[in-house]
Amino acid sequence: MRGKVAIIGAGLIKFGELFDKSYYDLIGMAANACIDSVDKGIDIEKEVEAAWIGTCMGGISAQRDVLSGAGLITALPYLKLKPVTRVENACATGSDAFRNAAFAVASGVYDVAIAVGAEKMREKEPQNFLRYVAGREQVLNRGLIAPSYFAMYANAWAKKYASDEKLRTYMSKVAVKNHHNGSLCPYSHFMFEITEEQASTAPLVSYPFRLFDCCPQTDGAAMVILCKAELAKKYTDSPIYLLGTGQSADVYWIPNRQSLTSALATVMAAKEAYKMAKIEPKDLDFAEVHDCFTFTELLDYEDLGFCKPGEAGKLITEGEVCLGGRLPVNTSGGLKAKGHPIGATGIGQICENWFQLRNEARKRQVDGAEIGLQHNLGGPLAIGCVNIFTNKKP
Amino acid sequence: MRGKVAIIGAGLIKFGELFDKSYYDLIGMAANACIDSVDKGIDIEKEVEAAWIGTCMGGISAQRDVLSGAGLITALPYLKLKPVTRVENACATGSDAFRNAAFAVASGVYDVAIAVGAEKMREKEPQNFLRYVAGREQVLNRGLIAPSYFAMYANAWAKKYASDEKLRTYMSKVAVKNHHNGSLCPYSHFMFEITEEQASTAPLVSYPFRLFDCCPQTDGAAMVILCKAELAKKYTDSPIYLLGTGQSADVYWIPNRQSLTSALATVMAAKEAYKMAKIEPKDLDFAEVHDCFTFTELLDYEDLGFCKPGEAGKLITEGEVCLGGRLPVNTSGGLKAKGHPIGATGIGQICENWFQLRNEARKRQVDGAEIGLQHNLGGPLAIGCVNIFTNKKP
Repeated sequence: MRGKVAIIGAGLIKFGELFDKSYYDLIGMAANACIDSVDKGIDIEKEVEAAWIGTCMGGISAQRDVLSGAGLITALPYLKLKPVTRVENACATGSDAFRNAAFAVASGVYDVAIAVGAEKMREKEPQNFLRYVAGREQVLNRGLIAPSYFAMYANAWAKKYASDEKLRTYMSKVAVKNHHNGSLCPYSHFMFEITEEQASTAPLVSYPFRLFDCCPQTDGAAMVILCKAELAKKYTDSPIYLLGTGQSADVYWIPNRQSLTSALATVMAAKEAYKMAKIEPKDLDFAEVHDCFTFTELLDYEDLGFCKPGEAGKLITEGEVCLGGRLPVNTSGGLKAKGHPIGATGIGQICENWFQLRNEARKRQVDGAEIGLQHNLGGPLAIGCVNIFTNKKP
Repeated sequence: MRGKVAIIGAGLIKFGELFDKSYYDLIGMAANACIDSVDKGIDIEKEVEAAWIGTCMGGISAQRDVLSGAGLITALPYLKLKPVTRVENACATGSDAFRNAAFAVASGVYDVAIAVGAEKMREKEPQNFLRYVAGREQVLNRGLIAPSYFAMYANAWAKKYASDEKLRTYMSKVAVKNHHNGSLCPYSHFMFEITEEQASTAPLVSYPFRLFDCCPQTDGAAMVILCKAELAKKYTDSPIYLLGTGQSADVYWIPNRQSLTSALATVMAAKEAYKMAKIEPKDLDFAEVHDCFTFTELLDYEDLGFCKPGEAGKLITEGEVCLGGRLPVNTSGGLKAKGHPIGATGIGQICENWFQLRNEARKRQVDGAEIGLQHNLGGPLAIGCVNIFTNKKP
């Protein structure tokens, strides 16, 4: 990127079931948290020049709110008459909204911009939603809903690299880890711990996934403020910087995929992001990855290069991805415990990077964290989005 | 912008009622036209690095196609595993998708990218669509549909600057002009001429709008290929260049607007684009503007600075905006005759800039055109988007 991009503020609300709040309420609350996080203050009306809103179903699910560009002005009136773009990219919506905001700042057109994500998942029209993100003709008409197409990958992986029993153990350990991390994270939808026994014996959803293998449906919102790196110290002595960004879109129709034991969209997005960041996976101190199902996190380890293909089980069994391990993953609780409010998920993951890289993650802090990664999947493992951050000026 | 951006290919399909075509068909056809337009050829699979898809209702209206990022891969398989972003911004969707692609190229991250827009308007679920782009709670619940909220502006303008009779004459002249231009444009939905008498006596839709004051509902697709300016001559000896871009989002709720005789979103977007382009309205040789209703085009003249507030009638009465005049407007036929397939509209307008600036517009050619403008509105006059192009290397 020609211009370097910093984040000088980040904030989110506690994710959960927020039936009493509108999209506009959620966004307003996240914006307040975000603005409050700017150490030296910011005059949003005067200093923010443009905005990106990531929402998958805003305007349809809520039955009353609308978030196409100008709709964001209803939530954040101080953006009136500024440019606002809505980005949608299935479950990777938030990450991609951030990525587009970053391009605009890197292009030199805007010095300060915001990226905000929001979703109300608990009031949705499920048929519309699934048709929208999963592709009615290509996927859903074949009876594949999210748990079942991720399960196809899980079963293929178990057959190739492990066994049903081993996969069950690995998945339960991921669930226990993420629920533990979530119990330490004040933004988490689920703040309770579970045991491996509970995870392994919970009701079956879609084999091999049981209840605690699946992320919940969650409402939420999150926001970050981006600026050109040269300006960052005006707003805070502790900005974080975008080191690399990548995105990749695979075919929707799963039988056309090259592999069922790797999400190539993740692999390609990570490749692009690592190259731009000029780092390797071993340089990471922590990562927030897309664990819509516990198995997805295992797959992410391999696709993001945290280990070799087939070796994900080792990372969780040996505790390397746990707090205190070599590379803690999903310190926020992940989608599994923190929740998965589509448009807010990716930007929420960036918020966790902000907390970790500023040493503000309290009980879930990764000591001395300097480089973090954020990874979002969308559709039937069809879209991968990866952003890499650091607290050292690049 | 740090990096300069060129367009090295542009293509669209004949807009119309295309019940027999899917979103994927429309996009594939537009892509073929676009790729064919690259004078020295391009290997899309090898050379295009990223894509932006603008669609407002893709995936919902069509009931079977899905265009979230990865959905575009179904239409254009050669983009497999490349980054694809979907942008949606009501009726300004196409222009904003282009703008985001331009930022990414200007940022230096991608050398070559595509921006494609598509919409199927004739199979839509109208209630969903209107709820989506207009804001159910704020606008539609008050009984305002598109013709009626644009009519509010028209009536306010007539009261302040003219009279009902004069406005009727001006609107009829715009309709006649745009139908005439459309009759010369092979991509136009309506290729027939009308008379002022027909326009003035057509059935009433929403006072003061009669049938020929309203754009049709149209299916269509359009695509452009962007690249960094330094690379343009590799693909063509006659690229066009992006001189300036601007966007602005106003509040949805019309009573909160500062004016009913000016769309401030257009004014602010134009201000941003002119400033970046370092030109003034008088430097333009032609313009494609958002004429969803004939009155909207009159309002655009004023908001885009083609004349002073209240003087739009003079431009059309004296023929200045007609082919052969000082500043021909909507040489393609505009939304009025060419049609308004939401996601494709803005990118279709950019295609007309491509044809005019390369002296390829045949019977509708503006002699010696060097600078053109493209303007798109979205929502209830809530989003304005302006892009300015030239055929001289900036």
